[in-house]
Amino acid sequence: MARLEIIALEGLPQVQPGDSVGELIVEALVRAQLVLEPSDILVVAQKIVSKAEGQMRVLNDVVPSLKALQLSRELEDKDPRLVELILQESQRIIRTGRQTIIVETHHGLICANAGIDLSNTGIDRALLLPKDPDASARGVREEVKRRTDVSPGVIITDTFGRPWRLGTTDIAIGVAGFNPVLDYRGRKDRFGYELRASITAVADQIAGAAELVMGKTHDVPAVILRGYDAEPGAGSGRDLLRPIEDDLFRDR
Amino acid sequence: MARLEIIALEGLPQVQPGDSVGELIVEALVRAQLVLEPSDILVVAQKIVSKAEGQMRVLNDVVPSLKALQLSRELEDKDPRLVELILQESQRIIRTGRQTIIVETHHGLICANAGIDLSNTGIDRALLLPKDPDASARGVREEVKRRTDVSPGVIITDTFGRPWRLGTTDIAIGVAGFNPVLDYRGRKDRFGYELRASITAVADQIAGAAELVMGKTHDVPAVILRGYDAEPGAGSGRDLLRPIEDDLFRDR
Repeated sequence: MARLEIIALEGLPQVQPGDSVGELIVEALVRAQLVLEPSDILVVAQKIVSKAEGQMRVLNDVVPSLKALQLSRELEDKDPRLVELILQESQRIIRTGRQTIIVETHHGLICANAGIDLSNTGIDRALLLPKDPDASARGVREEVKRRTDVSPGVIITDTFGRPWRLGTTDIAIGVAGFNPVLDYRGRKDRFGYELRASITAVADQIAGAAELVMGKTHDVPAVILRGYDAEPGAGSGRDLLRPIEDDLFRDR
Repeated sequence: MARLEIIALEGLPQVQPGDSVGELIVEALVRAQLVLEPSDILVVAQKIVSKAEGQMRVLNDVVPSLKALQLSRELEDKDPRLVELILQESQRIIRTGRQTIIVETHHGLICANAGIDLSNTGIDRALLLPKDPDASARGVREEVKRRTDVSPGVIITDTFGRPWRLGTTDIAIGVAGFNPVLDYRGRKDRFGYELRASITAVADQIAGAAELVMGKTHDVPAVILRGYDAEPGAGSGRDLLRPIEDDLFRDR
């Protein structure tokens, strides 16, 4: 029987700017007496990656532009310093309403508030997404390999809302070491019917699976998925972005 | 260490109209020598539920309405019989384009083609969603309890596309026996910052996790999630639908 395990990696310390996330993970693995397997996929929460990479901002240091002040007024006085940061992190606004700004970030991610986090950051502090989540994932992978001689797949995850569905799910914003989508297009079913729209976002499903043990309050920012036979490949979070010409919910 | 297991339940037979999915699952459990635990969550693919409930339609028996013929013409001659079924299964059209019709089904699910499936159904056959996926989930739960004395949580899953993200993920369309969302609103982080937008769609994350072993070609329509401490509750797939007044991507 196919059987996967989702293992919480507990005991990671509070992460500080300049820390190596890969190093902290290897140390936690040693403390937990966990030995990585080559097919393991390491799932790391964006929050610790952003903290390590110095992506924390002090809101009082942010000077809102006129555009941010205007948008703030339209959105029931949403904090104009936060609005300014959201605009700086974005290439376009997709929709606004109910104190929320849905944007396309410079990475091409479409999410509320440019993925900027105000919880578990400290009062008046905001945590931005990593500048290049794929590079972050590769960095973790390389550091883990250097120290353990095992190269796991790596996913950097964040928590996103969705149109139409209530509740967030975690998704993959950065990927290294495996193919984050499985493409079944052109394959046929057992009746000879060609599977047309069949690309599976495995990395997003892995991210969501990992969230089940990360939780919001459990303070587990790293998880191992064991037993999944991932498709080899360099991998990139960009593989999970729908091209705009194929998108029915983004104006061109 | 928190540790979850995702166990593929192999050896289910091809499902026929009138079959009891709960009964087939119990028989497969026995053959696999798997003993259910009270906290297990049983994840069942919509496809076998719909087949058992007689939701297969022969396309040649469908007479397209004028509206279906018109819409078919607008969508590069998408099969008008399929368009007719989509319209019958829907309460409103959300968007059309690229041979796709995004609708809100009578259940309130927003998805492409009303969730109607043409793959693995046989030529010229279309498989509709179950009429009441929560009732289907409750039915499986009750049948399993009757035969094993264990009442697992049950999720009926389907494979949905998403705006902006490439690749499908499985989500929960029917739920029984546990709370499919975790609501953290009002709780505070360790700095005293109130978590505002924090509802987690755990059942959708479980559905995606299960898909990792279901796969498209693996022919595993039932999966056990073991070790997850679900929040007790009656549960309903409707708990995962975003209310329209809270939705930025649906016109009122």
